[in-house]
Amino acid sequence: MNFDVITLGETMLRLTPPGFQRLEQATTFDIHIGGSESNTAVGLARLGRTVAWLSRLPSNSLGRTVAATIGRFQVDVSHVVWTDRDRLGTYYLEHGKPPRASQVLYDRSNSAMSRMQPDNLPTTLFQPHRARLFHTTGITLGISKSAEATALRAAELAKAAGWLVSFDVNYRGKLWSTAEAQPSCLQLMQLADLVFLPIRDAQSVFNIDDANSEIIINRVGAIAPNSTVVLTLGAMGAMARTADGKLFYQAAFPSTDVERLGSGDAFSAGFLSGYLEFEDIATALRWGAATASIKHTIPGDLPLVHRHEVESLMASASPTDIAR
Amino acid sequence: MNFDVITLGETMLRLTPPGFQRLEQATTFDIHIGGSESNTAVGLARLGRTVAWLSRLPSNSLGRTVAATIGRFQVDVSHVVWTDRDRLGTYYLEHGKPPRASQVLYDRSNSAMSRMQPDNLPTTLFQPHRARLFHTTGITLGISKSAEATALRAAELAKAAGWLVSFDVNYRGKLWSTAEAQPSCLQLMQLADLVFLPIRDAQSVFNIDDANSEIIINRVGAIAPNSTVVLTLGAMGAMARTADGKLFYQAAFPSTDVERLGSGDAFSAGFLSGYLEFEDIATALRWGAATASIKHTIPGDLPLVHRHEVESLMASASPTDIAR
Amino acid sequence: MNFDVITLGETMLRLTPPGFQRLEQATTFDIHIGGSESNTAVGLARLGRTVAWLSRLPSNSLGRTVAATIGRFQVDVSHVVWTDRDRLGTYYLEHGKPPRASQVLYDRSNSAMSRMQPDNLPTTLFQPHRARLFHTTGITLGISKSAEATALRAAELAKAAGWLVSFDVNYRGKLWSTAEAQPSCLQLMQLADLVFLPIRDAQSVFNIDDANSEIIINRVGAIAPNSTVVLTLGAMGAMARTADGKLFYQAAFPSTDVERLGSGDAFSAGFLSGYLEFEDIATALRWGAATASIKHTIPGDLPLVHRHEVESLMASASPTDIAR
Amino acid sequence: MNFDVITLGETMLRLTPPGFQRLEQATTFDIHIGGSESNTAVGLARLGRTVAWLSRLPSNSLGRTVAATIGRFQVDVSHVVWTDRDRLGTYYLEHGKPPRASQVLYDRSNSAMSRMQPDNLPTTLFQPHRARLFHTTGITLGISKSAEATALRAAELAKAAGWLVSFDVNYRGKLWSTAEAQPSCLQLMQLADLVFLPIRDAQSVFNIDDANSEIIINRVGAIAPNSTVVLTLGAMGAMARTADGKLFYQAAFPSTDVERLGSGDAFSAGFLSGYLEFEDIATALRWGAATASIKHTIPGDLPLVHRHEVESLMASASPTDIAR
Amino acid sequence: MNFDVITLGETMLRLTPPGFQRLEQATTFDIHIGGSESNTAVGLARLGRTVAWLSRLPSNSLGRTVAATIGRFQVDVSHVVWTDRDRLGTYYLEHGKPPRASQVLYDRSNSAMSRMQPDNLPTTLFQPHRARLFHTTGITLGISKSAEATALRAAELAKAAGWLVSFDVNYRGKLWSTAEAQPSCLQLMQLADLVFLPIRDAQSVFNIDDANSEIIINRVGAIAPNSTVVLTLGAMGAMARTADGKLFYQAAFPSTDVERLGSGDAFSAGFLSGYLEFEDIATALRWGAATASIKHTIPGDLPLVHRHEVESLMASASPTDIAR
Amino acid sequence: MNFDVITLGETMLRLTPPGFQRLEQATTFDIHIGGSESNTAVGLARLGRTVAWLSRLPSNSLGRTVAATIGRFQVDVSHVVWTDRDRLGTYYLEHGKPPRASQVLYDRSNSAMSRMQPDNLPTTLFQPHRARLFHTTGITLGISKSAEATALRAAELAKAAGWLVSFDVNYRGKLWSTAEAQPSCLQLMQLADLVFLPIRDAQSVFNIDDANSEIIINRVGAIAPNSTVVLTLGAMGAMARTADGKLFYQAAFPSTDVERLGSGDAFSAGFLSGYLEFEDIATALRWGAATASIKHTIPGDLPLVHRHEVESLMASASPTDIAR
Repeated sequence: MNFDVITLGETMLRLTPPGFQRLEQATTFDIHIGGSESNTAVGLARLGRTVAWLSRLPSNSLGRTVAATIGRFQVDVSHVVWTDRDRLGTYYLEHGKPPRASQVLYDRSNSAMSRMQPDNLPTTLFQPHRARLFHTTGITLGISKSAEATALRAAELAKAAGWLVSFDVNYRGKLWSTAEAQPSCLQLMQLADLVFLPIRDAQSVFNIDDANSEIIINRVGAIAPNSTVVLTLGAMGAMARTADGKLFYQAAFPSTDVERLGSGDAFSAGFLSGYLEFEDIATALRWGAATASIKHTIPGDLPLVHRHEVESLMASASPTDIAR
Repeated sequence: MNFDVITLGETMLRLTPPGFQRLEQATTFDIHIGGSESNTAVGLARLGRTVAWLSRLPSNSLGRTVAATIGRFQVDVSHVVWTDRDRLGTYYLEHGKPPRASQVLYDRSNSAMSRMQPDNLPTTLFQPHRARLFHTTGITLGISKSAEATALRAAELAKAAGWLVSFDVNYRGKLWSTAEAQPSCLQLMQLADLVFLPIRDAQSVFNIDDANSEIIINRVGAIAPNSTVVLTLGAMGAMARTADGKLFYQAAFPSTDVERLGSGDAFSAGFLSGYLEFEDIATALRWGAATASIKHTIPGDLPLVHRHEVESLMASASPTDIAR
Repeated sequence: MNFDVITLGETMLRLTPPGFQRLEQATTFDIHIGGSESNTAVGLARLGRTVAWLSRLPSNSLGRTVAATIGRFQVDVSHVVWTDRDRLGTYYLEHGKPPRASQVLYDRSNSAMSRMQPDNLPTTLFQPHRARLFHTTGITLGISKSAEATALRAAELAKAAGWLVSFDVNYRGKLWSTAEAQPSCLQLMQLADLVFLPIRDAQSVFNIDDANSEIIINRVGAIAPNSTVVLTLGAMGAMARTADGKLFYQAAFPSTDVERLGSGDAFSAGFLSGYLEFEDIATALRWGAATASIKHTIPGDLPLVHRHEVESLMASASPTDIAR
Repeated sequence: MNFDVITLGETMLRLTPPGFQRLEQATTFDIHIGGSESNTAVGLARLGRTVAWLSRLPSNSLGRTVAATIGRFQVDVSHVVWTDRDRLGTYYLEHGKPPRASQVLYDRSNSAMSRMQPDNLPTTLFQPHRARLFHTTGITLGISKSAEATALRAAELAKAAGWLVSFDVNYRGKLWSTAEAQPSCLQLMQLADLVFLPIRDAQSVFNIDDANSEIIINRVGAIAPNSTVVLTLGAMGAMARTADGKLFYQAAFPSTDVERLGSGDAFSAGFLSGYLEFEDIATALRWGAATASIKHTIPGDLPLVHRHEVESLMASASPTDIAR
Repeated sequence: MNFDVITLGETMLRLTPPGFQRLEQATTFDIHIGGSESNTAVGLARLGRTVAWLSRLPSNSLGRTVAATIGRFQVDVSHVVWTDRDRLGTYYLEHGKPPRASQVLYDRSNSAMSRMQPDNLPTTLFQPHRARLFHTTGITLGISKSAEATALRAAELAKAAGWLVSFDVNYRGKLWSTAEAQPSCLQLMQLADLVFLPIRDAQSVFNIDDANSEIIINRVGAIAPNSTVVLTLGAMGAMARTADGKLFYQAAFPSTDVERLGSGDAFSAGFLSGYLEFEDIATALRWGAATASIKHTIPGDLPLVHRHEVESLMASASPTDIAR
Repeated sequence: MNFDVITLGETMLRLTPPGFQRLEQATTFDIHIGGSESNTAVGLARLGRTVAWLSRLPSNSLGRTVAATIGRFQVDVSHVVWTDRDRLGTYYLEHGKPPRASQVLYDRSNSAMSRMQPDNLPTTLFQPHRARLFHTTGITLGISKSAEATALRAAELAKAAGWLVSFDVNYRGKLWSTAEAQPSCLQLMQLADLVFLPIRDAQSVFNIDDANSEIIINRVGAIAPNSTVVLTLGAMGAMARTADGKLFYQAAFPSTDVERLGSGDAFSAGFLSGYLEFEDIATALRWGAATASIKHTIPGDLPLVHRHEVESLMASASPTDIAR
């Protein structure tokens, strides 16, 4: 089977107290799974792309739950590497409301994915006809040295196979410092046709001391001269800059928050799906913004949007009535 | 026992995923019941009217649950027709938040109510002294030919008994087309002393291509020349027009959404209760708007408002503090 | 992709009040799915077989949930036929404890599967190398005439392709009378290499007025002279009789009830898996009994057993301690 | 409206930690209602009798919930006396399993019912044609002096109207001492045609220092010489003794415990229903035992049995299979 | 052990229907505890103060739950007085949203705390070195005469020991009239170094017929000439006035409501903690406002804020991003 | 503050699917905490002993939850060592019923406790007057080399302070092999006055190839010649052997299983409490058996028994009726 997109990354068990409780108040946890690259994979599959997700998982009930949940949403998980030895990364998410920030307590050290090696990559998969695009994020680079080497190798193999390479900087301050992240991300950005990054990552990881988004995206463009750069601006929408310096802007669609986690990944899924289908930056930005906007209304990390919802939102930005 | 109001219609089992989950995410459903005419009946009973609800139900646990739930709120269900053969209609409600619309997935074909016949009506009930007003909606007309015939017969019997007849257009696009709905609704509107309809139904069912609510209500008044027409305008409130062309306007009370479903039925309940008690259109509009506003804050379809809450809201439009 | 087993049948949404509540007490339902042939398919996949499940589903959130849940457990659902027009069958299960029987309230009329036609079968799949065994049950025969025709056609195609055919009588008194079931089942039994039936079905469907299991199995063997007959005896275990009249007996493994539903399907899954792997009737019976015994301890219809649990139970019939 | 049976007593809000948790572990309570006489009333209504329940309730949300829950099961609550001043009695039930006893923590002082006065009785109801039987229990006697006076007055009015009087001793050690209970119960027993009591109450309240049930029932018969005495023996079944000294014995039906609370009240409901319908002590005992046996399998205090289940259990004492 | 603060008051069991249900809809209650003075005690402990809470509790599972819950958050409960005779006060909280007010249904009569006597105070504790500040509220004064006497005695003992005395008027209309509350509160205010009151209490209890907060605080200052008066203004923030007439103003921090109950107590906790630590009114006001603002986002009455959250909010009033 | 008992060990977060679900089925986890030595500490506190628990915890919400939960039940946690660097151990418990074993999936590597050092022990605590008995288990020895060294040092310090030393072998096959466990346990047993071990640990860790409990206990006695050895026999009860070879036997009290986890720790708690209070082996055995029997009926690991329940069970082995 061949794929439109192959993503690589870590997916963790996510445990969340219900109803805005603090972790210290909880007597039950809601169980979700969360991982930037599998979130994007699920979103791509919902929008009609064929997708596979690569990772390394422990062969226990928790690892199987991760694979089954992703597989349930039509993402191929048959190339996942299984191990008897390591653990599944876990994180605890406490939902806050302003001024109480949502809190993430990571318990991800020594996970199976953090010990994935370049040798674990299914090299027969990295052939020209097997896929069109490879996607990973800076989280995978920051997990461990071996995960970083694996992601770089995968990007190189993808490039060599003639696929597009897509990279989301996705800086996580609890994983590594900006000083550590910068050189690592730069390496991957040199291979990437598409680079996604939120404006705050542009500022912090690449020391861009400016608040003007146009200046910022041009500065990132200078660092990644062969890439199309996509800068997400939160409530302000998103911008793109092609390698030849052309700028595109897309406003955010109005939205209501049920859960913000995973909206960046939903954006990438929408952008990549639109990009692969229509090969047009403006259209891709619009798909990204619409997909992210709908994701905000869905509990959990996964962008369980329907393609017709995205299309209908793009056709009419105003929320529809109850359909009955 | 005699009644202020008798309503006729279908009530279904409603299954809802908790917490804004999508249907595909749910592992439990919250159980409610929902039916426009029983919603209105419960609201009327809460406001102090004596009410009976007519319908046809399967004599199994689900049918009994519907009758018991409605009966629990002081609505008489002793004239319901029971059958051993048909099913209870069901619908699945997925709560959305903008831009994700709430979704209703109906599974209502071949329900017991859809097979109710005019002969099933308890004719001894349709006597002058047994009630003051009969109420039904366009949903009952749209369910099936036999339900439509039953509703028309009931309206004729009510008229013959000298009761008032009240009709809410309540167009449902998943039941029938506007082309089908128009002639059917017109038949009932000729019998109706009171006609309720949301502005969007006025536009779509009666092809009124205008956005001005005054023009619209006058056009509906022309179609139903003997009726008082009540046009609900959502956040803009409601209007009424008497048969002699007099116009009344009522702003909506500010409100917060917990669940919007059933707010039209709550409006009818408030209006009809005020109308029967005070025999004044402006007062009735005010009761309707206040009841609907409080309903927005209550989970489920049923308008479980207290009479004193409605009175207190009308006395002071500003939300009260925690009473302790 | 090729398969060890292909099963065909209907899977419904199952709604269950938690905690032994009566349907009339419930305010939430637990959501499961249940269908004899998909239960067996999931069990087979858990035990290491490659399996596909054939059916017809409505293309809405409920139909997708059924396919995703089955697919989640490594059963191929890519040959399911989707329709925009029909509904998903539903049933309500009230768990009882003696002397209160568990109650099933079916709401399955006019389901998508009941309108499956022989033409809907993916004929390219019914080729010699694509599978080794086809399995269906008497439930599929009893749903509707077109489902019956579809199941018969599938069995004929399987036979023509040189596969084994397996049939579980699985009589459901709420679907059809024994007088209706008998000729229909007999037709399929003539095609079947393996026939499963509980002792009470043998007695009622085939009018065998005897309580002796050896006499009964021989009488069924006379009716299905070319089949291996497997008679399940509840707490008494199971028997098999080959076409040449050889008898095998297997005691039940001691077990504790969490949920009995689906244990017959778990038995078939265990038997068929053992039969295909070891080609030995006594071994197959043992796998069937062990799988059913573990299923009793698992909530829901699906036999979510692990292969190592079945092996470990067969190795030592005594329950193991907490493994820690 | 006229009734077969009228019962009088207190019904409380019951709060229960789910899943055998201790009160100190609970973070949620399941909400039920419980009251001996309303339990019996609901059971009688389920078995086909027309029933009214008399009590005094606070006119707040909790009081309304009690009335609505009882009314939901077809028991008339229109003669309940409402007050703006007192509270609803509450109790906390911690479910145990042996050797940990279930614990009841009462918080029932100063309840509305404990302040009911004889004057609160709806005297127009106590007319010959309005009912056939009046039922109350020793709990009502023990709550307060005014409740005791009310129950006695009601029994006298019933007697005067020519109804049967039924009394269940139902001793509660947390309400009063046996020394206090004895004279009070004796007063009511002199008016009673039917006296129910568990064997342990016979022993403790009436100082019968014997373990032989035949001796005990005869001793109680001597104390209540005009009554039919019904002695419940737990797992050993029940006995009855008519005023002329005739003895009847009924074994218990085998059963499984989901919740034992309310099984004595279910027994009374079954007995009284059978007695009023068939006017035969042996039949009444059999209805009582069967109803109690099914009640054991139902969560909550209320005997939500179906008449056909009782009949079917009496027809065949063995638990039926899953009906599907 | 010595303490920064000792508080005295009643804590009740609080039962709340989940998800904005009305009390009449609820089938489960969420269990919390709530009491103004224990809320403040928990908040103080979270901010780093050493705190003890004084009260009188029934020695049953409910009383122990109250003590254990407060003790769990590092508040000393070893001086609580236990009784075998009285009950725990209870209240039912129905969460509303505008225009439906949240409703509190109290069931607190005859509670153990309402029967606390001045003699129950642990006099060895009221020694100069054992604490720095005593805090109670008008609720304790309003519960009963004996609770009022106990609170007054405690304040006198604290004063005699050289501690600061802090008093929150906290008027509850369901406990007593403003005419009853005024003289009682005035007595305590004469002893108090710090007096907290919401603006509406200033207006109603002290008959200050003015809407200008500066005028109001000066009027209260005139009544309590030796106290620092702290006036809370809801969304408008808070003001303080020292005995020498100096005024301080603090705006509210922007916030989102998860649950408003207990925010006044959170304000007191923040103010007192800041006051004891920094001995500066402006700083104390800022700590109070920040603590209350974070409390709004936390379910239940208890201010489970972290000290670093308060500091971080004061450092930057804008809500932080998800920390990951 | 001084203590009767000080325990040392690791406590983990325990996550459990509700209702006998498999881990792969769960969508929520119930949250408990579990650790052999804290279980015993809580049990001791419930029975009236003063207790402190020593451990090392991460200073995050999860670590605080562990300390608060233990502290809630009157166990002193003020000597716990806090760290900013390590994680809290976690385990997933899947409840089974025979023949499906309960499964424990440990995720405990690199926990804060596994990195506790002998230097972390609060040496000022290990003084003669500060406690009477020190208790730890073989789990602490098996976690890591540094935890083992810490436990040994603590036992030596306790011995030096003149306290009793108590040791429960508590072998965990998922932590270490019996070959690794044997020498480590032997070292601690040489210091121990009391040695607890289940019969299966005696057989496996000390290679005692015999099924006769008397032979086994004597063999263990030979290995630990200065200790009183307590051998638990599951459903068969428990035995003790004093250093001078005297044997005691105690049958198990009949019980019902709600949750078996933690029953060994409950036994130790009961035994130690009885031993410290009555200084009699037979009495201690009886307290141990009764406490364990009641624990079986309580959800979670913690032995939340009441002292009066233990006394009442010992007074009358038969389960009491519902106390009401």
